[in-house]
Amino acid sequence: MIPILSIVGKSDSGKTTLIEKLINALKEDGYRIATIKHDVHGFEMDVEGKDSWRHKKAGAQVVIVSSPEKIALIKDVKEDKPLGKIKDEFIKDVDLVLTEGYKRENFPKIEVFRRESGKDLITSTEENLVAIVSDTPFQKGVPCFHLDDIPSLAKFIKEKFLDTRKKRDISLCVNGKDVSLKPFIKNMLILSLHGILSSLKECEAMEEVAIKINF
Amino acid sequence: MIPILSIVGKSDSGKTTLIEKLINALKEDGYRIATIKHDVHGFEMDVEGKDSWRHKKAGAQVVIVSSPEKIALIKDVKEDKPLGKIKDEFIKDVDLVLTEGYKRENFPKIEVFRRESGKDLITSTEENLVAIVSDTPFQKGVPCFHLDDIPSLAKFIKEKFLDTRKKRDISLCVNGKDVSLKPFIKNMLILSLHGILSSLKECEAMEEVAIKINF
Repeated sequence: MIPILSIVGKSDSGKTTLIEKLINALKEDGYRIATIKHDVHGFEMDVEGKDSWRHKKAGAQVVIVSSPEKIALIKDVKEDKPLGKIKDEFIKDVDLVLTEGYKRENFPKIEVFRRESGKDLITSTEENLVAIVSDTPFQKGVPCFHLDDIPSLAKFIKEKFLDTRKKRDISLCVNGKDVSLKPFIKNMLILSLHGILSSLKECEAMEEVAIKINF
Repeated sequence: MIPILSIVGKSDSGKTTLIEKLINALKEDGYRIATIKHDVHGFEMDVEGKDSWRHKKAGAQVVIVSSPEKIALIKDVKEDKPLGKIKDEFIKDVDLVLTEGYKRENFPKIEVFRRESGKDLITSTEENLVAIVSDTPFQKGVPCFHLDDIPSLAKFIKEKFLDTRKKRDISLCVNGKDVSLKPFIKNMLILSLHGILSSLKECEAMEEVAIKINF
């Protein structure tokens, strides 16, 4: 499952700039990012006069340009496609999908806020708001990062959405003394315990597990 | 199976213009067309400065813009993708794929030729050449249409690649007299006979079938 994270906010709040900075920060750590921009007003993608532009103009429903480095596609659709469908149809081999817009869908959201553009947020925690990026502090029960503090925001995204596999670790303490475990044993214990526990009620989305045993 | 037909020819022979005209002619008959342009030199698709352009520039591997009318996508690839893979990954719900270029793939080809651009064709019948569109006649064992004779070329394409389903019809002659059949009965007879016959050897690609019975 590739996670989807939506960057929302009023127009001119700086969504595109934030997405650019996030892509840069996450790419540095080797993550592969896809973006989906929601454009309710329609858009022009191609360059007028080019062959592909002429194909589309002539009435092709799908136009694709393929080169050894990249592929581009423009396709007529009958309705505004939900994010999940777009992801399933077009996206694979990336670690994270960042969307610009899509406030109304129920994916986790980060709202960008700037004092000069409004008085309050446009998203609430009931709408799956997970963080705020702002030039003024907010107390809304979710982390609030300063607009310039991209490293902390990237760290938050990595921990919450990307590092699930990397974070996996296990420690063993016997009679009050830490026992060092070899990677193979760690992995075997993690996988075995995950297998046993995940079938139990309330263990569907395990993040931290503590087991204490008295013999 | 959506058929693929490649429009090939030297540069400046008029491939894009022919594709435009073909899309127009085939659309008039209700056919839905996809095009794939082969661009070995790389290309610019998006418009500089737009949000999606900024996402790509920042390093996103996949950039999608979605609106209620159309979807656009730009994706990094590691190699020049073969036509079949592009079709499988990105194209559905159309009747025909026209490609501009892809001379080296083995799909059926129509070569566009103009006297001023060369002395001979660049494609042979061994390379799956199925027709020529030219301002000068050729005797190569395949139909040769004049550059301006789009109606005849469109008719050829429809008959050879598109009309399989539309052509479906059945006639019944009993004791030397034609019997008129209602559409429901026609369809039932066609489907039943197709079902029975298609399991027989040498009946895999039935186009015309004649059955004669003496009781």
